[in-house]
Amino acid sequence: MRSHSRSLVRSLTRAVFATTLSLTTLSSAMLIETFAAEAAATQTRVSEFTLANGMRVVVVPDHRAPVVTHMVWYRVGAADEPRGVSGIAHFLEHLMFKATEKIPSGEFSKIVARLGGNDNAFTGHDATAYFQRVSKDRLKQVMIMEADRMLNLKLSEKEVLTERDVILEERRSRIENNPSAILDEQMSAALYQNHPYGIPVIGWMHEMAKLSPTDAMTFYKAHYAPNNAILVVAGDVTPDEVKKLADEAYGPLKSNPTIKSRQRVSEPEHRAQRRLELKDPRAGRTTLSRHYIAPSYLTATNGEAEALDLMMKIAAGGTTGRLYKKLVVEQKIASSASGYYSGSNMDLGKIGVAAVLADGASIDKVEAALDTVMTEMKTSLVTTEELDRAKKSYIAEYIYETDNQSTLARRYGWGLVTGGTIERIDSWPMDIAKVTPEKIRDVAQKYLDLKHSVTGTLMPEVVATAVVAPKDAPKKQ
Amino acid sequence: MRSHSRSLVRSLTRAVFATTLSLTTLSSAMLIETFAAEAAATQTRVSEFTLANGMRVVVVPDHRAPVVTHMVWYRVGAADEPRGVSGIAHFLEHLMFKATEKIPSGEFSKIVARLGGNDNAFTGHDATAYFQRVSKDRLKQVMIMEADRMLNLKLSEKEVLTERDVILEERRSRIENNPSAILDEQMSAALYQNHPYGIPVIGWMHEMAKLSPTDAMTFYKAHYAPNNAILVVAGDVTPDEVKKLADEAYGPLKSNPTIKSRQRVSEPEHRAQRRLELKDPRAGRTTLSRHYIAPSYLTATNGEAEALDLMMKIAAGGTTGRLYKKLVVEQKIASSASGYYSGSNMDLGKIGVAAVLADGASIDKVEAALDTVMTEMKTSLVTTEELDRAKKSYIAEYIYETDNQSTLARRYGWGLVTGGTIERIDSWPMDIAKVTPEKIRDVAQKYLDLKHSVTGTLMPEVVATAVVAPKDAPKKQ
Repeated sequence: MRSHSRSLVRSLTRAVFATTLSLTTLSSAMLIETFAAEAAATQTRVSEFTLANGMRVVVVPDHRAPVVTHMVWYRVGAADEPRGVSGIAHFLEHLMFKATEKIPSGEFSKIVARLGGNDNAFTGHDATAYFQRVSKDRLKQVMIMEADRMLNLKLSEKEVLTERDVILEERRSRIENNPSAILDEQMSAALYQNHPYGIPVIGWMHEMAKLSPTDAMTFYKAHYAPNNAILVVAGDVTPDEVKKLADEAYGPLKSNPTIKSRQRVSEPEHRAQRRLELKDPRAGRTTLSRHYIAPSYLTATNGEAEALDLMMKIAAGGTTGRLYKKLVVEQKIASSASGYYSGSNMDLGKIGVAAVLADGASIDKVEAALDTVMTEMKTSLVTTEELDRAKKSYIAEYIYETDNQSTLARRYGWGLVTGGTIERIDSWPMDIAKVTPEKIRDVAQKYLDLKHSVTGTLMPEVVATAVVAPKDAPKKQ
Repeated sequence: MRSHSRSLVRSLTRAVFATTLSLTTLSSAMLIETFAAEAAATQTRVSEFTLANGMRVVVVPDHRAPVVTHMVWYRVGAADEPRGVSGIAHFLEHLMFKATEKIPSGEFSKIVARLGGNDNAFTGHDATAYFQRVSKDRLKQVMIMEADRMLNLKLSEKEVLTERDVILEERRSRIENNPSAILDEQMSAALYQNHPYGIPVIGWMHEMAKLSPTDAMTFYKAHYAPNNAILVVAGDVTPDEVKKLADEAYGPLKSNPTIKSRQRVSEPEHRAQRRLELKDPRAGRTTLSRHYIAPSYLTATNGEAEALDLMMKIAAGGTTGRLYKKLVVEQKIASSASGYYSGSNMDLGKIGVAAVLADGASIDKVEAALDTVMTEMKTSLVTTEELDRAKKSYIAEYIYETDNQSTLARRYGWGLVTGGTIERIDSWPMDIAKVTPEKIRDVAQKYLDLKHSVTGTLMPEVVATAVVAPKDAPKKQ
């Protein structure tokens, strides 16, 4: 069964598209549940064990090709940073590609490339991960290298300062040069009243500029250790093979007894709708954006997160969502309109909606139309047709993702590192299938509350330019 | 001279009022400077020394009556709290009135009262202070008691939990029952993007409810020690007398070498004007309020803080300010309108303006009028008459305050505990006298920037009430 998952995925996704395109009248809860069960059946059975030093290991078999995805996930992210050193989690991720005793500075990725693989890393608010994709016979070597930098990183002052310039430049290009990213950052800062999700993962520029080698080493020593890491190996390996290799590579690493479970804070009651206005000469059309705080999959109970996912797919999922239909197609007041529920964070989820204004449209009118769409989610039930389509879309997406080894490894890595369970991850298609129109209305009523929201507008700012040349200006020859 | 300060104050304040009321045409920079110099001359000369254990001592002579004000200031406040335990600084302040080995629980204030004195304490974002006012001959006794609780506090689980109910009730009565306080809290949360000034001193309710004896003792042991305290004694004592008593009472206390200088964070660039809207059925008239971030006296340079104080006195100081004249007197769109500059915090100051709407007035109109007044501060110079009046008002206030022993003790205590100097505190009247209209326009241009601001509205919320009695409702007999 497992070795045939690719062809099963193909036939299932063909089925879902056929269903979506022409057989919608035949949709039923039964059909969806069958589809979900079939999706669940495509899952490869995940094995899990823990090394003596506390390192958790997850093996995701995928025998279609002799390659493996090797990921190490640390239970630390930007939301675990102390005040004043924002960006240190991400900065350390960069610095992990510097030297150890065994690997010269900057050689890590080059060695992986010479092994015929590729590698990368990423940092979020809740986790930091390092991964390589290599042929099966190179797994041992990347494990040894990854284990080595888990505890033996050496940082020179010069390298740290040079790399700091790199992250500052990264911030400039990703945030400072992007008015939408600035809007997003400002909205998060206004949305969260207590939680460090209000502080950007990359860090505040003025704090990044002061990050020191000591800050990096302090953070490294506090959080990087086998008992704070999860190893995920997806690919053409058996649990026994992984166990043997992991024992050899990671087994000798000493655990750090000072690492405790993460101390995260929660939000106070939100009482007032917030708004903010960003003017930027580089902005194109005016954008209206809104974020609501919501529970995450980990904090939600009783299927609320699944209902939020479906609610937003129906309300604002791409060009088939109600928001697009109303604002772009019918009223022609927006050139794009969409929304999402983001539920994968550890502590809090987020509902987002945004519209780019059409020429001549007013913000008030767009916001009123947006409010109408969102209010309808609270006051009336979605249709069975809409709900079935949304469910099928998610389940198909899940199947597609299952087809990709690295996405699969990320699914388990992210889920486990933030405190989820394999059972919950695996039952997702079935949990999606169970959501009712009433449940969607309930979560809409509960979470589409403006008191928990921030609404931001990004507007092009007209910069005053001199119409008349200054008197003493040098003339162009 | 010093023993005559009270009568000097009286004659000076008579002079200033005569000047303000009828001699304004005679005002001049010269007159103000003379007045400021005279105000400075009312200052009692402060002595300062440090005990061997690092405790700083300040003596403010005031020999008019045989009483003393004894204050101990700790360099710790709510903005020094770790994430997740908001309110712990204030909670500990309450718990400091519980037991030590020598003083039974709850007896501290009773003993002070039996000595014929009174006592209290307060907590801010930047400092925590404990004070007693007693007759001179009781100073030794209160010193011994204060020294005792600096290191020897004993907390029982039961007492801590009982006192936690007290602070929860305090929050309910001071914040939860007061829509204006909620508005203020929400505005601070939206104004600060990184700094814990955005978190209320009293704490977030959900975090206060979880504060434990361990949280309190951890905070106590981390921050309460002679090398993190400043003793201020104001009153009928000589520096030598205080030195002898302080050596006896506080000298034996061990300093805590783990206490380092405070690590405070700063704000990122503020880029977007924020707004928020609070609806509350208990609100009376609609209120419009705005806060701008500004430097504090400690972070401002070049006389900017003094200029901000004067700017706000002229723009919005009580019923003589421009804001009141325009909104209340001329346009009759507000029933009150005022503003302030708050510059005494360690890290950041704040400019605040607020108006309560008159019946039938619109928020937009009131905000437009408010904007006009603030914009005028940027575009034109204040008159000499306005500036002189504002200066005289501050200098007179300073003289008044100097006349009050406990205010005097607070002036030095707060100034020093937040990192200021005696010289700066003493030169304030002269520094105020030096501010020019141009300087005021400059700081207005620099700091009255909507990007650094949050605008909040508090509106009465009409609660829907059933017009028709429910069918099965029990009838009143």
